[in-house]
Amino acid sequence: MRDSDLNAALAEWKTALGEENVTADASATLPAQTATFSTRQRVLAILKPAHRAEVQDCLRIANFHGIPVYPVSRGKNWGYGSRVPTAPEAVLLDLCRLNRIVDFDEKLAYVTLEPGVTQGQLYAFLAERKSGLWMDATGSSNEASVVGNALERGFGHTPYGERFSHLCGLEAVLPNGEVLETGFHRFPGAKAAPTYPFGMGPYIDGLFTQSNFGVVTRMTLWLMPAPEYFQSFFFRSDNPGGLAPLVEAVRPLRLNGTIRNTIHIANDYKVLSGLRQYPFEETGGQTPLAPERMAEFRRRLHFGSWNGSGGLYGTRRQVAEARRLLRRALKGKIDRIGFIDDRMLALIGRFATPFRLLTGWDLSRTLAILRPVFGLMKGIPTDQPMESAYWRKRTVPPPQMDPDRDRCGLLWYAPVAPATGQDAVALTDATCEVALAHGFEPAISMTMVTERSLTCVISITYDRDVAGDDDAALRCLNALRTRLSTLGYYSYRLGVQSMVEMQGQNTYNRVLDSFRKTLDPKGILAPGRYSAR
Amino acid sequence: MRDSDLNAALAEWKTALGEENVTADASATLPAQTATFSTRQRVLAILKPAHRAEVQDCLRIANFHGIPVYPVSRGKNWGYGSRVPTAPEAVLLDLCRLNRIVDFDEKLAYVTLEPGVTQGQLYAFLAERKSGLWMDATGSSNEASVVGNALERGFGHTPYGERFSHLCGLEAVLPNGEVLETGFHRFPGAKAAPTYPFGMGPYIDGLFTQSNFGVVTRMTLWLMPAPEYFQSFFFRSDNPGGLAPLVEAVRPLRLNGTIRNTIHIANDYKVLSGLRQYPFEETGGQTPLAPERMAEFRRRLHFGSWNGSGGLYGTRRQVAEARRLLRRALKGKIDRIGFIDDRMLALIGRFATPFRLLTGWDLSRTLAILRPVFGLMKGIPTDQPMESAYWRKRTVPPPQMDPDRDRCGLLWYAPVAPATGQDAVALTDATCEVALAHGFEPAISMTMVTERSLTCVISITYDRDVAGDDDAALRCLNALRTRLSTLGYYSYRLGVQSMVEMQGQNTYNRVLDSFRKTLDPKGILAPGRYSAR
Repeated sequence: MRDSDLNAALAEWKTALGEENVTADASATLPAQTATFSTRQRVLAILKPAHRAEVQDCLRIANFHGIPVYPVSRGKNWGYGSRVPTAPEAVLLDLCRLNRIVDFDEKLAYVTLEPGVTQGQLYAFLAERKSGLWMDATGSSNEASVVGNALERGFGHTPYGERFSHLCGLEAVLPNGEVLETGFHRFPGAKAAPTYPFGMGPYIDGLFTQSNFGVVTRMTLWLMPAPEYFQSFFFRSDNPGGLAPLVEAVRPLRLNGTIRNTIHIANDYKVLSGLRQYPFEETGGQTPLAPERMAEFRRRLHFGSWNGSGGLYGTRRQVAEARRLLRRALKGKIDRIGFIDDRMLALIGRFATPFRLLTGWDLSRTLAILRPVFGLMKGIPTDQPMESAYWRKRTVPPPQMDPDRDRCGLLWYAPVAPATGQDAVALTDATCEVALAHGFEPAISMTMVTERSLTCVISITYDRDVAGDDDAALRCLNALRTRLSTLGYYSYRLGVQSMVEMQGQNTYNRVLDSFRKTLDPKGILAPGRYSAR
Repeated sequence: MRDSDLNAALAEWKTALGEENVTADASATLPAQTATFSTRQRVLAILKPAHRAEVQDCLRIANFHGIPVYPVSRGKNWGYGSRVPTAPEAVLLDLCRLNRIVDFDEKLAYVTLEPGVTQGQLYAFLAERKSGLWMDATGSSNEASVVGNALERGFGHTPYGERFSHLCGLEAVLPNGEVLETGFHRFPGAKAAPTYPFGMGPYIDGLFTQSNFGVVTRMTLWLMPAPEYFQSFFFRSDNPGGLAPLVEAVRPLRLNGTIRNTIHIANDYKVLSGLRQYPFEETGGQTPLAPERMAEFRRRLHFGSWNGSGGLYGTRRQVAEARRLLRRALKGKIDRIGFIDDRMLALIGRFATPFRLLTGWDLSRTLAILRPVFGLMKGIPTDQPMESAYWRKRTVPPPQMDPDRDRCGLLWYAPVAPATGQDAVALTDATCEVALAHGFEPAISMTMVTERSLTCVISITYDRDVAGDDDAALRCLNALRTRLSTLGYYSYRLGVQSMVEMQGQNTYNRVLDSFRKTLDPKGILAPGRYSAR
């Protein structure tokens, strides 16, 4: 790319969007090219269109001058690259100003959103209307984009946690600036557009997820009706070998619909990193935290080797029956189980100490993570999980957290396994071995995103201010990838540094490349994103 | 196409597949170009490959000689065109010999199939193994292809009735003969391939549904665990204006997960055409059957203006609670509701008369359709619904039904509406008006395929031996399409004669055309299928 091309494009973008919405200032571009791990990509400028028409202009201008453009909805892609583009150099297309909720239907339970709408914004929108509908929220943050996460096929924690199947049509600006609508949305006045995803003819919504085929400017998402009653459950197994029977016990309940949300199992490292920062004092500064030391923290802070959580949704009787079935399935496989609803949560808050005396179940320390986890199962977004990005930092998380700015080291890797005990053990054992050997704690959570599979999120958390750790973390990630793919576990999602993993069967990549070329002959839209090179 | 090209291709196909698997005999091709309505397309020959490699050969040869090829799995696409190709002339690629069940997992509840596997075959396979899993079945026939229906995004009647969301990866032969695998299937040894549909990168399974992008030679489908207890319900409203409150009452139960299957509501015409053939005697041969006459049949045969059916799946307590909620929701909106399980069905069969005396609910006449409908909700395929294709025939359905051969007239049209009372009424009112005006009975069923929408199947059933009816039926279909799309209701699926409906937003079609051209530059694979011309 020549400077003259970039300058010409910048001038045109300024005309299209207004001076104030185009910036090439280092004060803006440097933070945007910073992630929670080492990157070398450069952000040349940032464009902030406000409407679909301006997005079209941005892409037409980019095309004319051959400048790569990288769209971000809100850029909270923590652990996977934040706002950093996949190409060595690109102009950021920041969609934060496309932040309208353009349609909402209480009866049919859907909402149509632009990509700049945040989780917090949608939650406030529903609360304001006293809606009887719940959104699904991810464990990211209030500021994360709902659409952005859905396009990454991220997941949340309600019965609508598997995002893709609750997406019903989208509008995308193609690399040449044309606008495409999917499903029945492409037909004039189609009434079922927001309620029937497939439309007529080839169903193409999936093409716009994890891809660089278009800039999604609008998406319809389904919302769930709030149940008459909600009760969450939390269980733990104190036995490090207790994972396999847990998974085997829970899968049938997920398969038969008794458990409707994306039940979650976390290991001890994961829980500890949610409860506190790294115990530098107790370990005399030594890292990583050895498994032998964990037993002590588990006892002191009352958590298990494996810690499950999930929700029961329905009428009181439906929930009671689900509770009975869950207890029966887990019998002999766990050390504790607790059921918590809104009322009890309020009680615990007020009477943490007497409650512990009464039940023996100490929740005072865990309340800080219990509340957000409970809330997530009701679709309430939270900033709390972000705190764990500060696990290895020597200072406490600031009130306004920004892991990029604060040089938190965080790499996420998310392999998927069938939901069997054997697979869960093979995957977690290998992860622990590799992570510890590289000097990092294997913080693992497993979420039953579909009824048959576990999506495992592995966090490699470190301090970017510790010399050498940036490199060590990437080496660890590579080793994990090699080891886990040998075992047959591949990631459902990739960080900007890992697109090489898209290799695999050649025909798939060749076909997608050929499609990409017809849509984007100059390769200006997010080049390299989810494409094998 | 030149005859010499076709002859050369035929010779090569014979070499590749064996003489006996290539035929251009009129005794085979004429039946194949016959549907349940008037068509003019010609089938030039029929190829029967036995393996994926032979499918690849077939397509390579077709490509070389530029001969259009039209794949059919089992060809039971009744009402939409049977085996008739979309192009004026084509060679049929009959996949009936690709009939292997290549993978099956009881624990993770999935099966991997070739397109020639029939519903009856899969059912027998599961029964033989005494599997604890249920398949989903459509109301087509035992001989219908499981894969073929899924690729048309057809639907069935269990909680897995919405097919697409229960499909987990496929293998397709592209028009150039290359093989493509989707989802994690494209990675070597990927363990989650059959359990996690989306894989990594753009999710493209939807591209191979309702399309001509490839010949699907393998598909993984999820199966549902048989519930501890199953109970079906049947309700009716005798009030012709009773539809709207029914839909409003049922939708919330579907949305909140109390009703998990694709609940079904049929109008009186639909029920009558399931119970018997056209009442030529009673009407003195006059058609169509006027609404005023229906009241009499409803009374005599004990069905309502609106007739609902659905299933409750779970433990006995889960079912009991669902039953309570259903009764409560329908209170005052229906005239009768009955709950039937396996035991009661057996009893009814044995004691139909005493049962009627006891309960006042006469099931003797309806038992013939009750059994198959009950079975479909448990995933048991049936040939019974095919009988209604003989509705207007003057002779009774033969033991071996073949609507194409027997000159049954049948056109299906399947508009989708949001699941609201208002939409259901608007759609059915318009349908009745148009159908009756054209001389046909408006047989309508509505299925809540997703939690927010009704897929309406309208049958225009006639006798192809009645002069003029072929044309009148197509005119009726066109009028229906015009009227319903003006109201905002579009079909989820198209017959081979209706591909023109694919028009709509241009960008969508242009993008798909460009993709198609990269995959199939000569346009040899099912030209015209789900593409706007």
